[in-house]
Amino acid sequence: MINGNNIIACKYSEAEASIFNASDPATGEQLAGSFSAANYLLVDQALMSASEAFKTYRTISAKRRAEFLRAIAYEIILLGDELVNRAMAESGLTKARLTGELGRTTGQLRMFASFLEEGSWVNAVIDKALPERLPLPRPDIRKMLLPIGPVVVFGASNFPLAFSVAGGDTASALASGCPVIVKAHPAHPGTSALVGQAISKAAISTGMPDGVFSLLFDNGYTVGAELVKHQQTKAVVFTGSFKGGMALVKLANERNVPIPVFTEMGSINPVILLPEVLKQRPEELATKYAASITLGAGQFCTNPGLILAVRSPGLDRFINGLLNSIEAIPSATMLTSGIWENYTLLSSQALAKPGLDLIGRSALLNSENVNQAVATVAKVSATIFMSDPKLSEEIFGPWSLVVECDDVAQLQRVIESLEGQLTATVMAEKEELPGYSSLLDALTYITGRIILNGVPTGVEVCAAMQHGGPFPATSDSRFTSVGTAAVYRFLRPVAWQDWDDSLLPPELQESNPLNIWRQVNNNWTKE
Amino acid sequence: MINGNNIIACKYSEAEASIFNASDPATGEQLAGSFSAANYLLVDQALMSASEAFKTYRTISAKRRAEFLRAIAYEIILLGDELVNRAMAESGLTKARLTGELGRTTGQLRMFASFLEEGSWVNAVIDKALPERLPLPRPDIRKMLLPIGPVVVFGASNFPLAFSVAGGDTASALASGCPVIVKAHPAHPGTSALVGQAISKAAISTGMPDGVFSLLFDNGYTVGAELVKHQQTKAVVFTGSFKGGMALVKLANERNVPIPVFTEMGSINPVILLPEVLKQRPEELATKYAASITLGAGQFCTNPGLILAVRSPGLDRFINGLLNSIEAIPSATMLTSGIWENYTLLSSQALAKPGLDLIGRSALLNSENVNQAVATVAKVSATIFMSDPKLSEEIFGPWSLVVECDDVAQLQRVIESLEGQLTATVMAEKEELPGYSSLLDALTYITGRIILNGVPTGVEVCAAMQHGGPFPATSDSRFTSVGTAAVYRFLRPVAWQDWDDSLLPPELQESNPLNIWRQVNNNWTKE
Repeated sequence: MINGNNIIACKYSEAEASIFNASDPATGEQLAGSFSAANYLLVDQALMSASEAFKTYRTISAKRRAEFLRAIAYEIILLGDELVNRAMAESGLTKARLTGELGRTTGQLRMFASFLEEGSWVNAVIDKALPERLPLPRPDIRKMLLPIGPVVVFGASNFPLAFSVAGGDTASALASGCPVIVKAHPAHPGTSALVGQAISKAAISTGMPDGVFSLLFDNGYTVGAELVKHQQTKAVVFTGSFKGGMALVKLANERNVPIPVFTEMGSINPVILLPEVLKQRPEELATKYAASITLGAGQFCTNPGLILAVRSPGLDRFINGLLNSIEAIPSATMLTSGIWENYTLLSSQALAKPGLDLIGRSALLNSENVNQAVATVAKVSATIFMSDPKLSEEIFGPWSLVVECDDVAQLQRVIESLEGQLTATVMAEKEELPGYSSLLDALTYITGRIILNGVPTGVEVCAAMQHGGPFPATSDSRFTSVGTAAVYRFLRPVAWQDWDDSLLPPELQESNPLNIWRQVNNNWTKE
Repeated sequence: MINGNNIIACKYSEAEASIFNASDPATGEQLAGSFSAANYLLVDQALMSASEAFKTYRTISAKRRAEFLRAIAYEIILLGDELVNRAMAESGLTKARLTGELGRTTGQLRMFASFLEEGSWVNAVIDKALPERLPLPRPDIRKMLLPIGPVVVFGASNFPLAFSVAGGDTASALASGCPVIVKAHPAHPGTSALVGQAISKAAISTGMPDGVFSLLFDNGYTVGAELVKHQQTKAVVFTGSFKGGMALVKLANERNVPIPVFTEMGSINPVILLPEVLKQRPEELATKYAASITLGAGQFCTNPGLILAVRSPGLDRFINGLLNSIEAIPSATMLTSGIWENYTLLSSQALAKPGLDLIGRSALLNSENVNQAVATVAKVSATIFMSDPKLSEEIFGPWSLVVECDDVAQLQRVIESLEGQLTATVMAEKEELPGYSSLLDALTYITGRIILNGVPTGVEVCAAMQHGGPFPATSDSRFTSVGTAAVYRFLRPVAWQDWDDSLLPPELQESNPLNIWRQVNNNWTKE
């Protein structure tokens, strides 16, 4: 039985008058459980509790915060099939996918726990006093990162586990020492409620201050707006549409005290097929990309929505292979009817444009279910592509557009015309790569991650990952939302000058009691 | 002879129809030289050159960029007395101060050069492939920081050398690999012209692309606004008033592609005098703080504008000492007549408030010169202070307000009521510190740097420095404008996945040819 009440400071609040339900996107049928839409009063309670909890949570040792993160992972694993089944029913995603996503969710919680335990993440920098320096002595200065305060996380529709209530954003904010208030995505409230309960249990069992976590429901926009505007909110994280993300950025900029908003707002993730690989292995590329385009019904921020190549017989073979592969891929349930309507509308609008030709579409429509995304690939000339900015906008779903260029120079111009992207991918024979250095260089301006001979879907969760790119892919290209570096969104440096050693945080004390890597007088050391 | 034409891509442009002059703030007299106000055409030329130059400048090795920075320092030293004399005439600052500032300016250019030469600043992170991992192999991912593109730097009035044309902002942006367009501060155009010439010479002599540097003049606001709005501008740096800074932030947020604006907008830099130190050494503190309050006519962003203490006989002795010291400090020329008018107006408005009492003011008015700042200290009760937000606003100049608290609890409430600050200082006997942990902790929420038994004026330029604090002290508390970490304002991470080793930047190549510190599989190493 799912409790659909809001969770304020790890406790269920009373049921509210305004309730809403979840539905199965594959059938349109209502699912069990009803969810209380929150309101300003609950927003205020959640933020005031978070602000109060912050005073202690920020001083709790990183090792104890790591225990909390591990306990969350443990509680989520205890939910097991109940959680996976509910997430399947609410999202239309497959059991295999959601089981994998559950593993990713618990894996990244544990990754942040290890990161905290290792301890060097606070970026301690120490410049020792030089009392004899002339003309003036140098004081002792020691700097490290401190958490900024309560963080509001908007759950993403397309990762009901890994980027929702206990996803990467929540894990990284909690790791950094910031309390978290999650605005549950209305498409999977039951999944959110289950995970919210798991976090609350973990907070209580590991002795965290209860204001460290709250979960609010709303099937409209009011609660989200109030969360961004609340005085105690210190940062906001959002994954979703450009329109939704920019609305939050605007609200945050209008505050008396503006706060950072980290939005990930979509990307078409260009893939460049170089001539030699198209000559050698066009069918192999087609099979690989048909799978990547349609993975999870194409509902990935790193979905390859744009394929660029110079016209050639190899490209024709690739296009023919793509047609064959796409036709054989069954339709798939999209996350919500709204997403399905949008996909259907935008893809048909694109196909209606003069000069844009259908390559092929899935021929296997599941007529028993609703909200079925029909995978579609199309092609267009580079000239038309560059003349119509609409064609560079993301169509969220199993859609990709092949852009045929006259020559390499035009291919380069297409790349240079693109807005910021999360990823760019190059498919090439290794021998041909050195001939395209100017083109490869052009990619480094527009993207956060550049992949060779792979697919952009499937984002590795690790220290070196960069998941974030120039605007409009994200609102702040200097940060990542995937991997351990995601914590740096919620931290700011504080320097202590000539401070008493015993009163410094242990990370900065002269004896380095935590045995962490520090930059001391411009050298990396554990001394 | 100073050339007052705009410098576009290291070359003088033609004289413009609209010219303006500099004046000596001590006498009000016009100084030699006339300066061409720029316009949109020049803004566009500067940014288009910068954008073109960025393509090569970003790929120039860090070692060669270091040569460029050292050459700038060399050219500035060659200017020597001509530069110091012009800066004195334009700013009213003393020879000793400007000679020191020149040393700081060339020193920080060389510091950034060494930082580049050492090389580890790109924050290379490498997670190697795990081809055998189950259920999926891990790809090889390698991440480092890349420059973001042309940076617009607004020269600050109060540091005509160290935070103006070749100051810390320009040095850090050029170090990071970003071309710089400086908007000269209209109060010291001659100083700016001389330094602009030095940078241009250095760029040419070290073979940099000429668009790497431009210098634009304007005695109004149009050119600054056009610079922020230009499509090729990728970041903006500003030090000055809250009003000026927020106007630029607003312009940047309204762009089609928003860009980061790093503004430093003022701070009152609270100083907390603890009871025991007030009992032991009140006169010593008074002498020290009278000097800090009046240094450079109080025209420092870290000027101690607020002194907090609990009522006691020691505090009375401190106040009396402050009175004696302040009265004996001569008036000093302020940077501009506008700054002087503002200081005089705001300090007299404050003194007219009921409950606010004058402690003392400088009794030595230099009546031969104009724009003379009369150092002023006043006192007020904590109750009145907390009830009037106007009293927490910066009065730029040699002003400080002593806030008398009833007890430690009220002192803590005053601290908690403060907005974001660049610095906070605690004056204490070491033995008493442990008794004030809650108060010391409260300081870490509101400031970027916490000083023990020192003065906030005098900002050490080093790796551990944090010069930046929560809003409204700066627009982005996660970054610093002083010290080597200032480069991180202009860099963003890019990850390469499964990339060909020979095509990676040398910082990420397997053999670590630059011998830099890197984080490899979660370990810091030079391997």
